[in-house]
Amino acid sequence: MKITWESPLLPPSATTKEGALKPMDAEQLREHAHRMVDFIADYYKSIESYPVLSQVEPGYLHEHLPDSAPKHPEKLESILDDIQQNIIPGVTHWQSPGYFAYYPSNSSIAGFLGEMLSASFNIVGFSWVASPAATELEVIVLDWVAKLLKLPKQFLSSGHGGGVIQGTASEAVLVALLAARDKMLKIGKSSLGNLVVYASDQTHSALQKACQIAGIHPENFRVIKAYSSTNYSLDPEVLRKTISLDISTGLIPFFLCATVGTTSSAAVDPLSALGKIAKAYGMWLHIDAAYAGSACICPEYRHYIDGIEEADSFDMNAHKWLLTNFDCSLLWVKDRSALVYSLSTNPEFLKNKASEEGKVVDFKDLQIPLGRRFRSLKLWMVLRLYGVENLQNYMRNHIKLAQQFVEFVNSDPRFEVVTPQMFSLVCFYLRPPPNIQDDGYKLNKSLLGAVNSSGKIFMSHTVLSGKFVLRLAVGAPLTEERHIKEAWELIQEQASILLGSLSL
Amino acid sequence: MKITWESPLLPPSATTKEGALKPMDAEQLREHAHRMVDFIADYYKSIESYPVLSQVEPGYLHEHLPDSAPKHPEKLESILDDIQQNIIPGVTHWQSPGYFAYYPSNSSIAGFLGEMLSASFNIVGFSWVASPAATELEVIVLDWVAKLLKLPKQFLSSGHGGGVIQGTASEAVLVALLAARDKMLKIGKSSLGNLVVYASDQTHSALQKACQIAGIHPENFRVIKAYSSTNYSLDPEVLRKTISLDISTGLIPFFLCATVGTTSSAAVDPLSALGKIAKAYGMWLHIDAAYAGSACICPEYRHYIDGIEEADSFDMNAHKWLLTNFDCSLLWVKDRSALVYSLSTNPEFLKNKASEEGKVVDFKDLQIPLGRRFRSLKLWMVLRLYGVENLQNYMRNHIKLAQQFVEFVNSDPRFEVVTPQMFSLVCFYLRPPPNIQDDGYKLNKSLLGAVNSSGKIFMSHTVLSGKFVLRLAVGAPLTEERHIKEAWELIQEQASILLGSLSL
Repeated sequence: MKITWESPLLPPSATTKEGALKPMDAEQLREHAHRMVDFIADYYKSIESYPVLSQVEPGYLHEHLPDSAPKHPEKLESILDDIQQNIIPGVTHWQSPGYFAYYPSNSSIAGFLGEMLSASFNIVGFSWVASPAATELEVIVLDWVAKLLKLPKQFLSSGHGGGVIQGTASEAVLVALLAARDKMLKIGKSSLGNLVVYASDQTHSALQKACQIAGIHPENFRVIKAYSSTNYSLDPEVLRKTISLDISTGLIPFFLCATVGTTSSAAVDPLSALGKIAKAYGMWLHIDAAYAGSACICPEYRHYIDGIEEADSFDMNAHKWLLTNFDCSLLWVKDRSALVYSLSTNPEFLKNKASEEGKVVDFKDLQIPLGRRFRSLKLWMVLRLYGVENLQNYMRNHIKLAQQFVEFVNSDPRFEVVTPQMFSLVCFYLRPPPNIQDDGYKLNKSLLGAVNSSGKIFMSHTVLSGKFVLRLAVGAPLTEERHIKEAWELIQEQASILLGSLSL
Repeated sequence: MKITWESPLLPPSATTKEGALKPMDAEQLREHAHRMVDFIADYYKSIESYPVLSQVEPGYLHEHLPDSAPKHPEKLESILDDIQQNIIPGVTHWQSPGYFAYYPSNSSIAGFLGEMLSASFNIVGFSWVASPAATELEVIVLDWVAKLLKLPKQFLSSGHGGGVIQGTASEAVLVALLAARDKMLKIGKSSLGNLVVYASDQTHSALQKACQIAGIHPENFRVIKAYSSTNYSLDPEVLRKTISLDISTGLIPFFLCATVGTTSSAAVDPLSALGKIAKAYGMWLHIDAAYAGSACICPEYRHYIDGIEEADSFDMNAHKWLLTNFDCSLLWVKDRSALVYSLSTNPEFLKNKASEEGKVVDFKDLQIPLGRRFRSLKLWMVLRLYGVENLQNYMRNHIKLAQQFVEFVNSDPRFEVVTPQMFSLVCFYLRPPPNIQDDGYKLNKSLLGAVNSSGKIFMSHTVLSGKFVLRLAVGAPLTEERHIKEAWELIQEQASILLGSLSL
């Protein structure tokens, strides 16, 4: 669609006739934002023409930008030119259909519209009164998603629990850890130095960081090795033994983090067994389903979170795979008051009738920062503009594409699928030829470098049992069947070149 | 300006002919986003017609929304209708010209455009490689602002220091506190239980929260009372005595938080004197200039941060008064490695050549979360689209408007300006008539309630030396002289009604 303008003689200006700045003139907003919409739509139209992984060198931007801020205003057009010429080459295009690295960071039209609206209200929703709609929509929409996930009733807002949007899964695990820590310290049965945290070595590094922040002694962070024999999921028996040993030396187990869809291989920890252990020892059980949680809105994948009944907190990132622009991490807890106990402050300047009467929830007390954006808008718009069925099919399609990629890999004896495909992630590697001195580490690292340098796709890697493994995570909104096929052909081609050079 | 469309026969659809979701179709993005731009521009045009403080009752939204997410897609128009009918009544309009509460949260056209662009790239810039432009632009633009503020060279990126965008000032003080904590623990001269934090009782509650999170013992958080005699700034002599006493009992002073522009009354702590004390005792000095820092880009206000030379970290919120949409808190440190020591993790799945070669900064290691948005874009666009002179004049104008309000208050003997006007904040109160049994607390609380219930303006309050004080913070981008006048007339009118009812 093309837009035509009724050209005014003079465009709306950022300043009044007297020269005063009008940073919020509605007509200039309209004009400039329409221009930006076209810039963005054109970006998406041409997104496949850019290298997925930015190919710039460190420090590239310094050469292109001045050393100091301009004294006088510049035109939007010259800024847009600069974005095209100098910023975009330094962007790694997470929205490109050739993006298969880490896990996805979905943008969508609905999510984007929600971000626009949120940025225009630009409220800071720390308390209910600061913008009641922000708090209330968040409560309602997180109940919606909780129902899609069939979370136990205790996670709904009708009782003592409920959902709250965090920025990231890192913040979610941190607030859960703090709540668990302070619950233990409150009852006075332990000092900080005695508290022990448990998780598998496949758990996201966010937990280690959370422990550092919360002052958990590094020696009290039990990282339990997970093996290929359990597909890199946490072995409940090893956990139980580790806990017993700690208790026998006077330590206090208090926090267990289980993962549904680990970052390396999308492994799923056995929630039911872990839940029983957590319950037996009075530990807080946090479930990190940052990536894979979204898939659990499909009935056929819901079983991956069976056992969630014993969890105290559950987190998934709508900003990964659920088409809600970053950031939007959904945390549900059974007991909001545990978070509030850890994180609330009540300064005079924020006191207000609604909070004092206890009729409302003030989300400032369930998160690290005070301020917060109106993030529920974008999630609400995604759910409404697409509907649940479309969202389910969206994820099913990505999982199907990943299956297709598995078939490609299996069809080429030079390659090997390393772990069973989970959700939309494929972990695979190029087998080292017997005639070279390499266990495959260098070979696969080189292959990854070659593939990513091509600019056609961007994949990332992990190391599993010492093996350098390539990860292809399907999940970008624009990815279609042809992109999977092209990715595979590129990988094969680069592998041939690499193996050819080795056999010389 | 009006936009006309070349109407297509069928609008771009969210699904393919086969029914698969196309959540990122460029033409549908274009159409929908243009529609949203008009919705937003119209919102700004009519913003004065809405009550500034939302007048809804707790739980209002439940009646208007269904209990669960829709199975099938809904039309954008019906969602926009819902926003108009059900969301906007629950919004407290921080962008309204009648918004004078807390401190401002500026939106601007430039900031809004930056948010749009950032949401469309939707990158997650944890490491340099995840999108080099995001890291590099942030480094450059924070150098720009550091130069505007004439920060000491050590805060620039050319040495060991530099700037990093945090979500909020709460996160900024938390990461500073963690860096200071771990620096002390690293040298092994103290245990966590011995570390003491110092600040005045006017310091933002974010510091208390940071202490709770970092595991600082509540008894080791020294809240030093500030008095009207020093205009609510921290008395260096009292601080010195408090520190001496702590040292004599074996405690270790390690963190001092000074504020430039406190939340209650925009008080300014004496940085030079505090810096000397911090230096003498080897303490980390953090300066929280969340609100007032922006004004310090004007030469005539720069003296408020004189003494910053001895600080280790300095924070100001571009999202308050510097026309950059929320969130965008600018933190500068002299020694990035102190943050990295506290906050870094190095999981295999994030390893990459650029990081391993040490040529780049990975901002994940200077903040709480792993993921981060491309927030430098909006700050860069604000600086370029407006230019430094306009930004300085923008703040000068707000300060002038606040002065005007002070004159209004002074002209009415029923009222009193409580603390000297600092920046664009006026703290005032209605004197209780001698014939009533009230020290003014109830009276001013009632006045605030009446004024805010009118919907015409939104102010907030604080308590200073037991006195309930009204705060009028000028700073919304649309506020003009007439709004100040109207606000004052409304306050006078409501005071007359209130005093009249008392004398009956």
